Amino acid sequence: MSLWNGRFRSGTDQRAALYSASIDFDKRLYKQDIEGSIAHAEMLVEADVITSEEAEMIKKSLRDIETRIEKGVFQFDHQLEDIHMNIEQALINDIGEVGAKLHSGRSRNDQIATDERLYLREANDRLSQSLQDLQTALFSAAERFQHLILPGFTHLQHAQPVPLAHHLLAYVEMFERDRQRLTDTRQRINVLPLGSGALAGSTLPLNRQTVADKLGFDSLSRNSMDAVSDRDYIIETLSALAIIAMHCSRLAEDIIIWASQEFAFIELDDAFCTGSSLMPQKKNPDLAELSRGKTGRVYGALVGALTLMKGLPMTYNRDLQEDKEGLFDALDTVGSTLEILAPMISSARFNGNRMREAAQDPALMATDLAEWLVNRKVPFREAHRQVGRLVGYCREKGRPLNRITLEEMRLIIPSAEEECLNLFDPQSSIDRRDLPGGAAMSQVQSQLRFWRQKLT
Amino acid sequence: MSLWNGRFRSGTDQRAALYSASIDFDKRLYKQDIEGSIAHAEMLVEADVITSEEAEMIKKSLRDIETRIEKGVFQFDHQLEDIHMNIEQALINDIGEVGAKLHSGRSRNDQIATDERLYLREANDRLSQSLQDLQTALFSAAERFQHLILPGFTHLQHAQPVPLAHHLLAYVEMFERDRQRLTDTRQRINVLPLGSGALAGSTLPLNRQTVADKLGFDSLSRNSMDAVSDRDYIIETLSALAIIAMHCSRLAEDIIIWASQEFAFIELDDAFCTGSSLMPQKKNPDLAELSRGKTGRVYGALVGALTLMKGLPMTYNRDLQEDKEGLFDALDTVGSTLEILAPMISSARFNGNRMREAAQDPALMATDLAEWLVNRKVPFREAHRQVGRLVGYCREKGRPLNRITLEEMRLIIPSAEEECLNLFDPQSSIDRRDLPGGAAMSQVQSQLRFWRQKLT
Amino acid sequence: MSLWNGRFRSGTDQRAALYSASIDFDKRLYKQDIEGSIAHAEMLVEADVITSEEAEMIKKSLRDIETRIEKGVFQFDHQLEDIHMNIEQALINDIGEVGAKLHSGRSRNDQIATDERLYLREANDRLSQSLQDLQTALFSAAERFQHLILPGFTHLQHAQPVPLAHHLLAYVEMFERDRQRLTDTRQRINVLPLGSGALAGSTLPLNRQTVADKLGFDSLSRNSMDAVSDRDYIIETLSALAIIAMHCSRLAEDIIIWASQEFAFIELDDAFCTGSSLMPQKKNPDLAELSRGKTGRVYGALVGALTLMKGLPMTYNRDLQEDKEGLFDALDTVGSTLEILAPMISSARFNGNRMREAAQDPALMATDLAEWLVNRKVPFREAHRQVGRLVGYCREKGRPLNRITLEEMRLIIPSAEEECLNLFDPQSSIDRRDLPGGAAMSQVQSQLRFWRQKLT
Amino acid sequence: MSLWNGRFRSGTDQRAALYSASIDFDKRLYKQDIEGSIAHAEMLVEADVITSEEAEMIKKSLRDIETRIEKGVFQFDHQLEDIHMNIEQALINDIGEVGAKLHSGRSRNDQIATDERLYLREANDRLSQSLQDLQTALFSAAERFQHLILPGFTHLQHAQPVPLAHHLLAYVEMFERDRQRLTDTRQRINVLPLGSGALAGSTLPLNRQTVADKLGFDSLSRNSMDAVSDRDYIIETLSALAIIAMHCSRLAEDIIIWASQEFAFIELDDAFCTGSSLMPQKKNPDLAELSRGKTGRVYGALVGALTLMKGLPMTYNRDLQEDKEGLFDALDTVGSTLEILAPMISSARFNGNRMREAAQDPALMATDLAEWLVNRKVPFREAHRQVGRLVGYCREKGRPLNRITLEEMRLIIPSAEEECLNLFDPQSSIDRRDLPGGAAMSQVQSQLRFWRQKLT
Repeated sequence: MSLWNGRFRSGTDQRAALYSASIDFDKRLYKQDIEGSIAHAEMLVEADVITSEEAEMIKKSLRDIETRIEKGVFQFDHQLEDIHMNIEQALINDIGEVGAKLHSGRSRNDQIATDERLYLREANDRLSQSLQDLQTALFSAAERFQHLILPGFTHLQHAQPVPLAHHLLAYVEMFERDRQRLTDTRQRINVLPLGSGALAGSTLPLNRQTVADKLGFDSLSRNSMDAVSDRDYIIETLSALAIIAMHCSRLAEDIIIWASQEFAFIELDDAFCTGSSLMPQKKNPDLAELSRGKTGRVYGALVGALTLMKGLPMTYNRDLQEDKEGLFDALDTVGSTLEILAPMISSARFNGNRMREAAQDPALMATDLAEWLVNRKVPFREAHRQVGRLVGYCREKGRPLNRITLEEMRLIIPSAEEECLNLFDPQSSIDRRDLPGGAAMSQVQSQLRFWRQKLT
Repeated sequence: MSLWNGRFRSGTDQRAALYSASIDFDKRLYKQDIEGSIAHAEMLVEADVITSEEAEMIKKSLRDIETRIEKGVFQFDHQLEDIHMNIEQALINDIGEVGAKLHSGRSRNDQIATDERLYLREANDRLSQSLQDLQTALFSAAERFQHLILPGFTHLQHAQPVPLAHHLLAYVEMFERDRQRLTDTRQRINVLPLGSGALAGSTLPLNRQTVADKLGFDSLSRNSMDAVSDRDYIIETLSALAIIAMHCSRLAEDIIIWASQEFAFIELDDAFCTGSSLMPQKKNPDLAELSRGKTGRVYGALVGALTLMKGLPMTYNRDLQEDKEGLFDALDTVGSTLEILAPMISSARFNGNRMREAAQDPALMATDLAEWLVNRKVPFREAHRQVGRLVGYCREKGRPLNRITLEEMRLIIPSAEEECLNLFDPQSSIDRRDLPGGAAMSQVQSQLRFWRQKLT
Repeated sequence: MSLWNGRFRSGTDQRAALYSASIDFDKRLYKQDIEGSIAHAEMLVEADVITSEEAEMIKKSLRDIETRIEKGVFQFDHQLEDIHMNIEQALINDIGEVGAKLHSGRSRNDQIATDERLYLREANDRLSQSLQDLQTALFSAAERFQHLILPGFTHLQHAQPVPLAHHLLAYVEMFERDRQRLTDTRQRINVLPLGSGALAGSTLPLNRQTVADKLGFDSLSRNSMDAVSDRDYIIETLSALAIIAMHCSRLAEDIIIWASQEFAFIELDDAFCTGSSLMPQKKNPDLAELSRGKTGRVYGALVGALTLMKGLPMTYNRDLQEDKEGLFDALDTVGSTLEILAPMISSARFNGNRMREAAQDPALMATDLAEWLVNRKVPFREAHRQVGRLVGYCREKGRPLNRITLEEMRLIIPSAEEECLNLFDPQSSIDRRDLPGGAAMSQVQSQLRFWRQKLT
Repeated sequence: MSLWNGRFRSGTDQRAALYSASIDFDKRLYKQDIEGSIAHAEMLVEADVITSEEAEMIKKSLRDIETRIEKGVFQFDHQLEDIHMNIEQALINDIGEVGAKLHSGRSRNDQIATDERLYLREANDRLSQSLQDLQTALFSAAERFQHLILPGFTHLQHAQPVPLAHHLLAYVEMFERDRQRLTDTRQRINVLPLGSGALAGSTLPLNRQTVADKLGFDSLSRNSMDAVSDRDYIIETLSALAIIAMHCSRLAEDIIIWASQEFAFIELDDAFCTGSSLMPQKKNPDLAELSRGKTGRVYGALVGALTLMKGLPMTYNRDLQEDKEGLFDALDTVGSTLEILAPMISSARFNGNRMREAAQDPALMATDLAEWLVNRKVPFREAHRQVGRLVGYCREKGRPLNRITLEEMRLIIPSAEEECLNLFDPQSSIDRRDLPGGAAMSQVQSQLRFWRQKLT
């Protein structure tokens, strides 16, 4: 028995009722639905649609319903389709005719948009916090292990030595951009659609600003037709989530590669690994793998929402009901991934010896030699060519770059000097990169100070 | 307490356990897991790993566990991660040491792949049936309303008149291709991975063919490393589902447009519509809209699976655990959409008068006039240009094509004859298109015969 | 002959050279590459790496190369891989050893990121302007046709009458959010990566702030490893483009449906339609269809970029080269779509009679009657139910809502009064929706004033 | 000046002409378009629409046009929109009125579908061949290096030793499934749509079977409305391409990881690597990285096509024009990737010593020990637990599994015997996995024989 079927001759087909019911997933919005209804009811007093006594009755009953839902004793009913109708029917069951007044001047179209925006506003704040917690974990590891160095990689090949802290802070930067994106999105979330009715507003003298003030919205939607069919804030949130998931997948990839026996740069705590049902010796970085794998479902949710909205005519279409499950799943997925990565990083051990050893390869300092030549006015391309030839020479001889004599070096690099033989210490190499954003310890320490202030 | 943690010093972090547990969604595979285990156990007797009495104990206990799961009294435990470990632990709890022998020679890696393939084989068959049911609904409507004609549309503009049956059978064709795709996919699903172990097979003398025979697999996987990391059959299924969903979205779009007040070509039964919480007059084609909207989540699931697999090194990686939820959701979504569309079509009323009226517009027969000229050896391009000018002339005069005199027509089309004035009847126009696949009633009836035989 | 192959024994395979060359598409960045190089050269003087005379030579030659590229006489070479190497080699060919000094202290990794950011900054500004132009076209049509009313649709069903201007302004709102998103994205684009070297900065005394000032960047990247591997600004741009494309697809859908013979709400100018190669009478809204269809490639480009970045380890990987083609295509696609829609809207004729006629259906005022009852203290649910029954009654009697007597009405709605019979005028109905964002003419005019100020 | 604008009062807007023209990309179909036209012309003789002399003139002129296109001297014109109109206009320019007869009985709607199917049929065959070439390269490497062993990985952790050939043949399996998918798709491609006209067939007495026979189509489309709006064969091809691209990305990932200094399992030939513009020592696996990265654009093309088709009403809509660029790009991308990977594999050197050394770790044989116990009737779970504890014990003692005494082993594994100490040789471990699909050399050799026969 629906609340809308006055004009219908027959009831809804059972399969159809099940297919179209959203209560299984939109019940998650109960809190927001009730907050919105209370604000709406209070405003209806102002609009002289109900009395303040009636508003009190409504408010009291809604709080009671809220408690029942939270205690798990509320009976959700598929026939009532969605969270709005489930709560409204319960209200009417509780307080009768007064409850039947609540829906005055609103439609489920503006109601659901309000609920979703309230929900997303909270979720947005929670995500920002989780991002900050992961940043803090990364920052703390960077600070704790700031004496460690390792090869920086490009193309998964040794490139130049860098401090581990520099590598870890690169991720802190990524997650900072994520937080900024969330902040930007939040301002487009925090707009009140209620009062837009089904699509055209209401003939009742509603005061939308009152509702906005009560619910903490920054502004009112300016066009009722847009307001009931806009889901940009959901897609924008999903886009931000997709980028966060991508960042997590990159961090996970680094961890997985570093945890291999061949790299052995990191050892994850047992608490963040699992074993094999068959192979007794295995300790797998499963949590990192899952963090990487879960990227797929977040991307999928974004594609789902974009597909959903493609080519929809104005205004509200029932397709929009499909905006929730992917969103909720993506929020949960990204939230829990951030929450797993933080302690995984915090509890990980870094194998400083392995890292340092790998960074010792003098070939990593080839650029230093080329740039030394540039400082002696050798054109860079010429310097690059000479050093490249030297690398080839050493490879053929089977000797590392720092095991050749000055004489040999001069055969290929005529302007080489004694000093060149001393360019192959990775720590000095790092410290020579002393410009803003560079790998030098002094720069990294300045970055650590920046983040210490920002994150605490 | 895990079944794999002999080598671990500490337990799994609680958050990590929750994050990595798959039991909430892979419990759906309980039936397949048990079937697979029973076949495995029976084969272990042959391999002399267990006795036939032990196999009987295992089988009996597994059947008992199956019953408990079906009755909803089985206690699933997140600590046990997945359906395999939940069932194996229950088995050990039941029959002790004998139960502890079941996992001999297998790994969860080959076990889950076996479960998924068994599940998908069934789901594939079910989907084929649902597709056929929808085809039958479309076919029956086509047969029932074969006397109705309407304008065929290109660019959502009137193009040429067609029988409604021709329009409906076009969808039957689409769903037929879908069934073929499922059949093709099925043969790649129905390959046994069990016996591949974690990645390299087993040192125990397992007989894989025995297991395949028992479980109805057509063949054995040929490479154990591939077998445990292959998820092609999932992606291929999702691709097929995405195309089905797309077809459904097109059918839904046609229904939604036809149900508009402006078109009014179709009236959906009340049982497949819903109303508005605000506007008492509304009867909305919600189910069709949902069918269209749900396309998004199916596309999303496909993108999710593709993303998941991108760039994974060999062999099994825990990322693969993420292959299930999107798949299950897409199967459920497409299955229920097909099941809703069938009765929606069956119960719909078509408004023959509106359709016929729209098809009367003589402009729809402009091509017939051009082709009449071609039959008089006027080059088609010239015929097209002359008729185009005639259309322009009529438009300026505000008169339909069939309301001009032969004299007027001849001013623009010199070779026009009396007969040309009789080309504007839509039914005759349809019947002139008498070639295989064409709109002529004779052709459509031949198609109806074809489908009657094929679908029943 | 590459600029980097000092250490290589053999040349690159021809297929490999072709497969990896990006010059075919990254040559589009020539202007930005040259701007960046000039700023870099000027800074190298400050860093004492080159003399100011050398900088002048470099600058002059680069400007000359720029001219040659613009005149189409520059020879691009696949062997030189990309725009950077093509220009650098031409520079060396021109001015010899001095040209070979330009690449001092930089890598293609920070160079390409700089080029892309410069390019995107401009593209971002251009897009904002195109969005504003389309907003202006919509706004002008809204202003010009502000006396027209039509049925507002939900579920593609008549819902309530609205001014055409209200409908058109809904799109202005969507495109306004798009502009805001672009503005937010721009601040994350406008960060200088140059000076990050391959991944760790440089040992040369580069002054990054000087370069930033010359190129108009707001800030310096803070972490060199992040700077060379960050493509967030590309994904974020693609996300914004995807939403714009989605908005265009919705506008296109409305146009296509309105242009159907059944709706006939709009007539597009011949200049924005095309005909049929077969059917002489056809005039198709092809441009709108293409605008809708092109959504796919924009979504695809976003998915491509997200897929690209998934699971990439730090720092630069050659995969990143794949970040450009999809981006360029999406920018071009969305840009040209906006530029087509604006004149299509400006030149369209709206069929006020058809729209008004459709809006006359008294059922569209059913909500007004329900809300009239609410003003008489009838609980809304009860009012909704009574009006719903009245709608059903009228449907059975085959009479519109405004063709029944007060007596009949009272049989179903006991508290109905004479006044109720006068609620069915669509214009009055619109004007009753007089709250912020509502459909009332007064509200719409206030919105028109707002946009007139904002857009001009 | 278009071939269709008889009815139009004004010409097409210049921007609109450019926006809607497809000639820039559909000119790739010139060969198929001409083949199709020749078959059509020949059939028109049979249908008595043209004479055989006229057919000859058409044929001769079309062949001449073909030659001009191939020589690059044909002038394509945007105003003529597409390849069909460009060729038809050239034909008319060449032979006048006779050329104007060619389009009799067909529409661009059925013409483009025919062209695309002809093109895809060829592309499908080419792809199959490229897949086989890559399989052959992998197979040959497997055969050549069949004496090499390495650790098999799960979770990127050492799992169990496997032959390199087994690892390589796993990829041969993947690409074999890809070939099967292409074969299945081909049968749905090879259906003739010509004769479907714009949507409803033709009033001319066309013989569709004649055309099908001439063009080598297996069957005729059965429903003209479906035939002109079906793009399943494109999406299905893109799905198959997406899976191929995914397989390539996995192979690339293995190569990239193996080429790292830490793994050093593989050394790519210089011809398939590139260097750094900054770092003289670098030799990067760029081609493999690009192969991985290009996955994104293929996924994107699939998403683009799916998005395109979502919710399109029947029948042809101009959106469909957007079906080509993504398809062409994906075909080119996957084709060239396969062609690069084959010689990259063929020319790669495998570092047998590094691989063997990594496979020596006795922990990789832990499962062998557990399965040895199973053969002594120790329940597998108990065996797994004991061996797990032994692994933990060894780890704490800092000794490998094969460096403990039988006495120590018996403290944890009571039933251990002398023989257990001999289980730690990787080659023997491999050979113990002697079941179909397993890692044992005998099994691998049987697989090599299978593929030698199949691939040659």
